[in-house]
Amino acid sequence: MSDHLFPKIKPVQESDLQKAQSHLDILTKPPGSLGKLEELAKRYVAIRNGDSTLNKKSIFVFAGDHGVTEEGVSAYPKEVTQQMAHNFLSDGAAINVLAKHVQADVIVVDMGVDYDFGNIEGIIPKKIAYGTNNMAEMPAMSRNQAIESLQTGFDLAAKWVSKGTDLFAAGEMGIGNSTSASAIMATFADASAELTTGRGTGIDEAGFKRKIEVIRKSIQINKPNPKDPLDVLSKVGGFEIGGMAGLILGAAEKKRAIIVDGLISGAAATIAFKIDPTVSDYVFSSHKSLEPGHNLFFSLYDQSPLFDFQMRLGEGTGAALGISILESAVKIYNEMATFESAEISNKYPS
Amino acid sequence: MSDHLFPKIKPVQESDLQKAQSHLDILTKPPGSLGKLEELAKRYVAIRNGDSTLNKKSIFVFAGDHGVTEEGVSAYPKEVTQQMAHNFLSDGAAINVLAKHVQADVIVVDMGVDYDFGNIEGIIPKKIAYGTNNMAEMPAMSRNQAIESLQTGFDLAAKWVSKGTDLFAAGEMGIGNSTSASAIMATFADASAELTTGRGTGIDEAGFKRKIEVIRKSIQINKPNPKDPLDVLSKVGGFEIGGMAGLILGAAEKKRAIIVDGLISGAAATIAFKIDPTVSDYVFSSHKSLEPGHNLFFSLYDQSPLFDFQMRLGEGTGAALGISILESAVKIYNEMATFESAEISNKYPS
Repeated sequence: MSDHLFPKIKPVQESDLQKAQSHLDILTKPPGSLGKLEELAKRYVAIRNGDSTLNKKSIFVFAGDHGVTEEGVSAYPKEVTQQMAHNFLSDGAAINVLAKHVQADVIVVDMGVDYDFGNIEGIIPKKIAYGTNNMAEMPAMSRNQAIESLQTGFDLAAKWVSKGTDLFAAGEMGIGNSTSASAIMATFADASAELTTGRGTGIDEAGFKRKIEVIRKSIQINKPNPKDPLDVLSKVGGFEIGGMAGLILGAAEKKRAIIVDGLISGAAATIAFKIDPTVSDYVFSSHKSLEPGHNLFFSLYDQSPLFDFQMRLGEGTGAALGISILESAVKIYNEMATFESAEISNKYPS
Repeated sequence: MSDHLFPKIKPVQESDLQKAQSHLDILTKPPGSLGKLEELAKRYVAIRNGDSTLNKKSIFVFAGDHGVTEEGVSAYPKEVTQQMAHNFLSDGAAINVLAKHVQADVIVVDMGVDYDFGNIEGIIPKKIAYGTNNMAEMPAMSRNQAIESLQTGFDLAAKWVSKGTDLFAAGEMGIGNSTSASAIMATFADASAELTTGRGTGIDEAGFKRKIEVIRKSIQINKPNPKDPLDVLSKVGGFEIGGMAGLILGAAEKKRAIIVDGLISGAAATIAFKIDPTVSDYVFSSHKSLEPGHNLFFSLYDQSPLFDFQMRLGEGTGAALGISILESAVKIYNEMATFESAEISNKYPS
């Protein structure tokens, strides 16, 4: 089924990884002494078959609303989704500050916000619907809408590669989407809602219990099939989550690295990996979120977080910080002197 | 004794911390959702009594040689210290690349390299001697030389604050200095050399055993007194380690934050903290080094690493990456919109 939606992704080649490591080993430092930075640089360069260009960085923030907010699962009202979208456009949000810090563009995509943005500048209009259905009562969206959300992200990746993007990052905004993402992770990991559910933006104790119950009920009613990622996305997903999963698939297809963020981004990556496991070769994890469901992502896949700052904001804020780290690694690869050029004694222990 | 060397450092005020947190809480994000970034910003701003300026960043790389290299404790010959110093000056080392990435200056200080740099531009000549003595046979330096090394770093901090430095970082270069730093940590923690010793730049198995034995012997012969940080610095320290400790004290005295690096930087910070424990308020740890002796620093003090990239290079490379993270935190503080200015519903759970 899902095999036919998108082209098969080609794995990163072992020979490209080795070539990149060989270059790292002649730089003026003890071999391996930059640890994970060397791992990052090696994979980034191998993804592009030896090309170590890293100029244009694009952080996509997909926004969408969730019908499940009717159940009182968030500390904030649904209107905050569109209010924050406006905040992104006027450069006032955390992701704007961090994107500027790492010299990345922020691209805001309306995947399904329950608000009419009209002809406002700076938001890409890809609205699939005015929010999803309440998944505690019915599927969040139709299978066709799930496909549409994936295709939207996939096409955006291709378009931005043609605009010169070297590195992608995936972020989101959507009140209620930690409920959706926790349901996705619970489904794929066959785990209980208790294990995958956190406080999101900071809900109180009563709301937290309600949230767990809502996730349990949504899975019970909809019976998402963990072997069918499109089924999971349509039953308990969100439009912005589909958009992120599509962006991840599209970046990989174009041989571009993509940095994922926290729980919601991880749920999207899980959907992408279920569609095509090879995609993981192209994905870099940034932070470990405070949300417990995010741990399942790391236990399901050969991915590990670069840092744990106890963050739980979303928007791609963790991914933005990850950009700076990945870029520092690629600069090490590109800019350091070699032992030979710097005339430094290179005596390794034999 | 040490009380009289430097002015007493004033602690960061709780009221300044609270004021900074109050500002963070009105920004457009769930309160506390940026985790450690908020902690970093809060302390940075409180250190400066509410001033959140962060423009000029200065990474000091103190270089010095170690007589103990005679014992064969390093994977590289001693000449690499001066060769790497030249590499710093021609922008070819890892620290140059990372400093440029985070837009920081690199200031190279000759604290005691066994080489005559002559009138070469770009290195600050503060040579105390042509390398330390072999600590496996006698004290690494005299008590007066230890004081001189501290005073040098202290005065450099003051000079650079007058040049406008907002944020300091401490790095080093010195073949053999992981042996010295491990001996310092073993002394202060009353731990065995096995526990505090690592492979440094990558010594082989035989060399590793020799290194442990040399550290044990150096402590046995010199009997450094853990209650007297100057005694420890003079018996088993290094000129560059004294310079770093002095820089840390000097930065704190001028109410400037300083980021420390790995094992050797941690050993210097330990000396500074032993001289005046309040200094810790001004110190930000960056990474957790692969060197086991570095763990003791975190267990002795209320300091925790921001990240663990399995790095073991030194030069201030971990601290440079830490600059980018701390700066991102301060930018969050300075640049984000407030709920009120962005007209966003701010309903916290009551």
